[in-house]
Amino acid sequence: MSNPTAAMIVIGDEILSGRTQDTNSNHLAQQLTLMGVDLEEIRVVSDDEAQIIDAVNTLRMKYTNVFTSGGIGPTHDDITADCIAKAFDVSIDVRADARAALAKNYKSPDIELTETRLRMARIPDGADLIDNPVSKAPGFSMENVHVMAGVPTIFRAMLAGLLPKLTSGKEVLSKTVSLKMKEGDIAKQLGVIAKNHPDTSIGSYPYYDNGAFGCNLVIRSPNATRVSEVAALIRKTFLKD
Amino acid sequence: MSNPTAAMIVIGDEILSGRTQDTNSNHLAQQLTLMGVDLEEIRVVSDDEAQIIDAVNTLRMKYTNVFTSGGIGPTHDDITADCIAKAFDVSIDVRADARAALAKNYKSPDIELTETRLRMARIPDGADLIDNPVSKAPGFSMENVHVMAGVPTIFRAMLAGLLPKLTSGKEVLSKTVSLKMKEGDIAKQLGVIAKNHPDTSIGSYPYYDNGAFGCNLVIRSPNATRVSEVAALIRKTFLKD
Repeated sequence: MSNPTAAMIVIGDEILSGRTQDTNSNHLAQQLTLMGVDLEEIRVVSDDEAQIIDAVNTLRMKYTNVFTSGGIGPTHDDITADCIAKAFDVSIDVRADARAALAKNYKSPDIELTETRLRMARIPDGADLIDNPVSKAPGFSMENVHVMAGVPTIFRAMLAGLLPKLTSGKEVLSKTVSLKMKEGDIAKQLGVIAKNHPDTSIGSYPYYDNGAFGCNLVIRSPNATRVSEVAALIRKTFLKD
Repeated sequence: MSNPTAAMIVIGDEILSGRTQDTNSNHLAQQLTLMGVDLEEIRVVSDDEAQIIDAVNTLRMKYTNVFTSGGIGPTHDDITADCIAKAFDVSIDVRADARAALAKNYKSPDIELTETRLRMARIPDGADLIDNPVSKAPGFSMENVHVMAGVPTIFRAMLAGLLPKLTSGKEVLSKTVSLKMKEGDIAKQLGVIAKNHPDTSIGSYPYYDNGAFGCNLVIRSPNATRVSEVAALIRKTFLKD
């Protein structure tokens, strides 16, 4: 049986303007790899209703899981929760369980839970809350769409609570063989090895560092023995001493 | 007149497995912001023909420019050039100008330009070459799709040569006001300011650092005076000493 799949939607103008480097998708990718869920696509979209809804509706039909980061705070540019409600055509309002979770963050919830802050307790109808141990304002899962905060500390904390609840697959194992050789010097033989081992995936990732070319060959498969065999063959082929 | 737009397609399994953190899209975003081109979407896709072709054909119809990184080396997993040819329904073959560019990288081109290396001189029919001052193997522009290498040093060098040839827009200027306040404490007033200044975009980017919450408010507009006015108003509203 093939592994569950996933896509990520990073929401935020600050990524697209280059002001902020997104690190949430890299963290998610690493975590999913460990649990055997194949991340197949990442999209970064702006704080734009039509674009968010389109990405959510396209990807939730296509993949087992969709993860989003960003746009669930209390300010005017936080529109993710409303977009999810529209994407699923359900209503959205302040919900008692979300309000109770949020209230834990304040000493005097009756005073401090202003109308603005209560925006963070607005949850689309039918969604399950995702715990936020850092700042309490919850994320939520609406069917297969998991909506989390953009602040990396909070995103990671939410994800740590969420992932054990999702269906895992067979972890894809990998070995890396590093060569101080140009890709052009190995490509032909490597192509033959790849063709002869269709049950493993072999990626070649070139680098250029201080005037020297090299490449990392990454052998991937859920089968540890096959990974080791192909890695050994690659070493034998290109590291001849 | 509104600014030219752009999308980025990052091609590579290594990003989706979490092995590599993509930095090319952040670099591109910063460069485009400086020249007034609005980056509106980033997609990361795997080394998969159908997925690459679909992303290219969707995005090239939608945006002024599409930039790609990755998958133009000599190895078996480098399929970007072929995918672009298929996306545009044109033929692809080794081209004399690309071969000549590539030959500059070798002392004895007749010997060293192996069949495998010549894969890097395969250019879709009708494309213009993009210079590669680092390792010579060229990128190319096919209509509004600009195809570049994934290795960051090479991506940046190619981009530096390409961007001056593209149509620029009005640079979007920005000012950032940093507040050591929770978003919930400013959201209401900030919403009013945003509503009263529809010609500027105001983003609120929360952070959480060593147990303390804060947010950066970024005011953006092509009009420097408006940016300064709104930044001053925000400072006056929230920094009251």
